[in-house]
Parts: sequence; structure tokens; C-alpha cells
Amino acid sequence: MSSIHAVIMAGGSGTRFWPLSRSSRPKQFLPLTSKLPLIAETMKRMNGLSTPARTSVVCGAKHVALVKKALPKLSAKNIVVEPEARNTAPAIALACIHVAHADPQGVLVVLPSDQHVADVPAFQAAVREAVRVAEGGEIVTLGIAPTRPETGYGYIRVGVKQSGAACKVAAFVEKPNLETAQGYVSSGKYLWNAGIFVFRADVMLDALTKHLPESARPIAALREAWGSRRAAAVLKREFKKLPSISIDYAVAEKASNISVVPASCGWSDVGSFNALPDVRALDAAGNVCEGDALLIDTRGSVVLGGKRPIAVVGMTDVVVVDAGDAILVLPKDKSQDVRKVVDALKARRSALL
Amino acid sequence: MSSIHAVIMAGGSGTRFWPLSRSSRPKQFLPLTSKLPLIAETMKRMNGLSTPARTSVVCGAKHVALVKKALPKLSAKNIVVEPEARNTAPAIALACIHVAHADPQGVLVVLPSDQHVADVPAFQAAVREAVRVAEGGEIVTLGIAPTRPETGYGYIRVGVKQSGAACKVAAFVEKPNLETAQGYVSSGKYLWNAGIFVFRADVMLDALTKHLPESARPIAALREAWGSRRAAAVLKREFKKLPSISIDYAVAEKASNISVVPASCGWSDVGSFNALPDVRALDAAGNVCEGDALLIDTRGSVVLGGKRPIAVVGMTDVVVVDAGDAILVLPKDKSQDVRKVVDALKARRSALL
Repeated sequence: MSSIHAVIMAGGSGTRFWPLSRSSRPKQFLPLTSKLPLIAETMKRMNGLSTPARTSVVCGAKHVALVKKALPKLSAKNIVVEPEARNTAPAIALACIHVAHADPQGVLVVLPSDQHVADVPAFQAAVREAVRVAEGGEIVTLGIAPTRPETGYGYIRVGVKQSGAACKVAAFVEKPNLETAQGYVSSGKYLWNAGIFVFRADVMLDALTKHLPESARPIAALREAWGSRRAAAVLKREFKKLPSISIDYAVAEKASNISVVPASCGWSDVGSFNALPDVRALDAAGNVCEGDALLIDTRGSVVLGGKRPIAVVGMTDVVVVDAGDAILVLPKDKSQDVRKVVDALKARRSALL
Repeated sequence: MSSIHAVIMAGGSGTRFWPLSRSSRPKQFLPLTSKLPLIAETMKRMNGLSTPARTSVVCGAKHVALVKKALPKLSAKNIVVEPEARNTAPAIALACIHVAHADPQGVLVVLPSDQHVADVPAFQAAVREAVRVAEGGEIVTLGIAPTRPETGYGYIRVGVKQSGAACKVAAFVEKPNLETAQGYVSSGKYLWNAGIFVFRADVMLDALTKHLPESARPIAALREAWGSRRAAAVLKREFKKLPSISIDYAVAEKASNISVVPASCGWSDVGSFNALPDVRALDAAGNVCEGDALLIDTRGSVVLGGKRPIAVVGMTDVVVVDAGDAILVLPKDKSQDVRKVVDALKARRSALL
């Protein structure tokens, strides 16, 4: 079995958890599902499959300090800093170059830094199976067995069965409407696309060169310079030449050597406050409750406080968040409307973003 | 016309506006209806009828500093300090003794310190009429023309018409249920009891002595000592002998010289957060909004913040209050449930009361 390299993608800068998340403190650095930040849970999830020496993080320059703080065991040389945010294909290219520099046929397990997995043994079993398939030259994605007709995720149509648990990918499909999603779920032929990819470094670099030809010269230049004193200068010069595109568009939807390994592991993308009741302990009335919260006649709500007491009385299915310097109140099922607040704060050039 | 003495009753210690109100900062000291505390609005409401020299405040020792701060024009010698809270009859007895010491037939206008009046000229006209009737020896209450079948107030059944706008009081009736209240309002024969009383000092002292015989000796002792060096010692000794009872029970429901003057003056007792939309400016969506509040898709709500931004999205008819050291969220029509929070905080001996 090849060496497994965990690659944690931490370039995200979402504000769906405002006022907890800010541009200087994105979601992956928040302890949303446990006392650890999501990114630390992500690294911990790979314990036994990879090691700190074989764990890398791809992030922006302004989040390096947060990465070091959240992941004290991570080696500083394994923090791969993107000169700018250019979507997942350039980030994965960098990760492949970084891993290939020491281990050209090493297998990368690329993980978004801001997800939750309830059943880690099931997750690890699926990753092991994906690694086995990836060693044979496939680009493997984990497909999450859907538990509801979610319209917020992309889906994978499962194709011809391969060895073990793996199947070929018949197609990646965009976020469906509700009716379509219901059809997907009841058909049993669709899995959620979790953005988790497993592949050999050399296989992905070949695939990028083939399916994203503009990336061939920058990748070659970066590989040549990686680890040398010229690396920083070449990175600065060449990274911006990589097309800003997702790995799904750039490679996954085009390549023929794409497989999927199904996983039923209690996965969640922790997309908004509304997702927290699915991934956290609830009180007897179905509330998620943190900090000095005093809940009376309150049900199904998410109340995240700090040191200041928050009293919530007679409310159902609401979100109340006190971030210390700002407070948010909204109906739980409208959690995505946090973006309206963020837009308003942008318009007034608020410092609270 | 006799001299008019405004007497502001500021002994209340309610927590219906927690977390804004605390035992150290009761409702009457909060700027709930304007930029001024309710007690300052109450004094201002008597401008032109009384003067600062003829304005007294009855309060507890621990609120003297708040009274001085809220009412900078008030003379310190007109702050009458109750040794303990013993309901309104003892407080009014003290006020009568205080006024009678300088002006035995002076007319007192006794005003709760925590109410709101929208139409001050109408209020003053009613007070003038009440003073005219009181000069003749009546104890006069202002009766507020009801605008809704409120179940939270006591009512006054109007009796035989007297001179001018005044009528005899047929009866004081307790807080009714909704059906009874609807009957009261449609009958046109009932007014709200606002707890505003107008009477001559000597008339009320005689009435107390007659209808509350246990008060006769303490009152006599206090009158004898008032203004002397013995006053503080006598007050401490005698005040606790006055029965702890409301002026309504002690006198108003028993005496025959009780009249009522109707008033339509936009009165409110500002009983809870739910009352604020009735007494404050609203935004286009019917919200009361204070501080750095960012309201999006939000209607009919009361959002009281301070320096920290409060974002409220997609909510209808809620109360959100940030008092700096504590936060409250509840449905507006359950504003009275603030007491449940206060009870819970009492149980945990919280410092936030």
C-alpha cells in the first residue's frame, strides 16, 4: 500500500456562520461541532491513516497563523500557502506538487477542512477502499449515501460496478431541485458529492496536464522549482497562470478514470446554523446550547453564547448567536439568510466582516 | 386655587424589563419612551402645574442617587426616603406629612414614576379639573378612557355625575377577564385605574386616620417630628408600624368622598416590552429599534441594542434586548414571561438581578 498523505483544503472564506465567522476567522477555524475547530477534527479524522508528517494544509497567507494554532502537530513545511485564492484545481495542483516532491506515487486524500463526520471508522474504511482503488490509477471520490433529498449538494450518478465497493462515476450532476432530488434519493443510484478526492500525485498531475492544458507549463515550472530557493518566486509568478476553476470542472467531469466509493459515515458539510442540530448533542427540548444560555419554553433552537447570559423564552426553531462583538437572531430554517446581513455589512463597510 | 404639589412615587422595583431593569436600576430610571428616564418624563409632565420646589419623590434609600441623577432640578430635601418598601398607603402618608408640614391644605398630585402620557395638554387639563374638585375635599383619581379590553388593569365604575367633568366613583373593580373587560369597554361606564390620585394633604391624612386606624398614631408621631432633628429616628421607628397596604384598599375603596375625572391622554403604564410599540416611534415595518440594530425582513419587533450590532433577520413580533451584560429573546406577546427568567436567575442567585 502506498503512503497516504492527508491534504486539508483550508482556503475557504465563507461567512455563513456570521457573526462567529469573519474573513479573518473562517468557518474551518470555528469549534462548531466539538471543542475543536472543524479543521482540527478533519486532521484527527485521519489518525491511523496518515501521520502529521504526511499531513499538509493548503491555505491563504492570512490564515497561516490560525492553521498553526489549530493544528499544533502539523509541520510548518507542510503548510502550502496559495498566493491567492483560485478555486480547488490550482490548490490541488499545488498539493500534488508538494507531495510528489518527496513521494511521486504517494496517494493524496484531499479533504475540505470544514466538514463533519459522525462515524469515523466507517469514514476510514471508505478512505482505505478509495486508496486501494487510487493505487491502480483511478481518481476516486467518496460518495455519501444520501439521507434526505438535499437540494444544496451536487450528486454523483453511480456507474458500472468495479472491484470491491468501488464503481465508475457515470456523471457528476449539479444541485437539483427538490423533485429531482427526491427522484435521485429513491432511485438508489445517486450519492452526494462531498468534495473528498483520493488519487496518486502523479495520476492527478497527469490528469490536470491533459484536461486543463493551460496548467501544464505552470505545473512543470513549479515542480522544477519546488523545494529550491527559487520556489517562492516561481510560486508567486506561476500560480496566477493556473486557471481559477474547481477540480470537479477541470478534471472530475472530464476524465474517464474516475471512480466512486460509497460511504455512510454520518457526513455533513455543516452548511449553516441549521445544520448544527444534526451534528451536535441536543438538550431534552431539541436545542443546541452553548455558553451561559438560559432556555425557557424553547424548542428546536440553536443558542450559541459566550460569557454573557442569553435568556431565550418561548421561542421555537430560532438561531441566537452572541459573538461578543455582534449578535444574530433569525429563524433556524432561514439560516442561509445570514448572507443578507453580510451583504448589508459590506455595503456599510463594516469592520465586523 | 391651592398650591399643587407633584408627588412622584418611585419605590417600584419591578423586573419586567429585565435585562434592562435590575433591582439596582428599576424601570422608572430607564429611558424607555424617550431619551429621558420615565421618572424624568413624569416630572416634566407636570411643568406649568407644579414647580421643582413643589415636586417631591418618595423612594427607597438605595435609589436616592438614581433619583438625583435623573431629576437634577429636584431639591434634595424633597426626596422622601422610605425606610423600607411598604406599598402605596404608607408612601402616600409620608408624602402628605411632608407636604402638610409646609402647606397643610396643599393639593398633592400623586403620580406613579413609570408611566407614559402621549397627550400632555389633555393630561394637564384633567389634572387641573381634578385639583379643582380636590380643593372641595374630594379624593380624586384620574380615570383613563379605555381604548381596548385590557385585562391587566383595574377599572373604575363611574357613578353619579358631579360638577364639571367629575363623577363620583361607584366602585373600584379588580382586573377583569377578557369577556368582562369587553363588557366594561362597550358599556362606556368604566375607566382604567391609573393609580394617579389628587387630594388635599389634610383630607388624605384624615381619610387614612379614619379608614386605616392603625396608621393614626404613627402618622401623628411623624407629623409631630417632621422637620425636626428627631425626624430620622422617628421615621425609622414609626414607618414600620404603618400597615403595608395599597392606597386603593386602605382608602379609595372605603371612603365616600372619592371622585373620578376622566382623561383621554394617550396613557400607558408601559407594563412590558410589548407596550413599547404603543409609546414609541416605529420604523416602516412596525419595529421599535434602538442602538446599532440591523433589521432585515423583520416586522412588529422590539430590538433594543447598545453599541454592539444586533442583526435580526426574518423575524416577526419578537423582542431582542442587549443590555451589555445579558441578552433576552422572546416573542413580543409573551413579554410578561420575562419573570420566568428573573425567577430562574433568582434560583441561581445571579448577580444580574
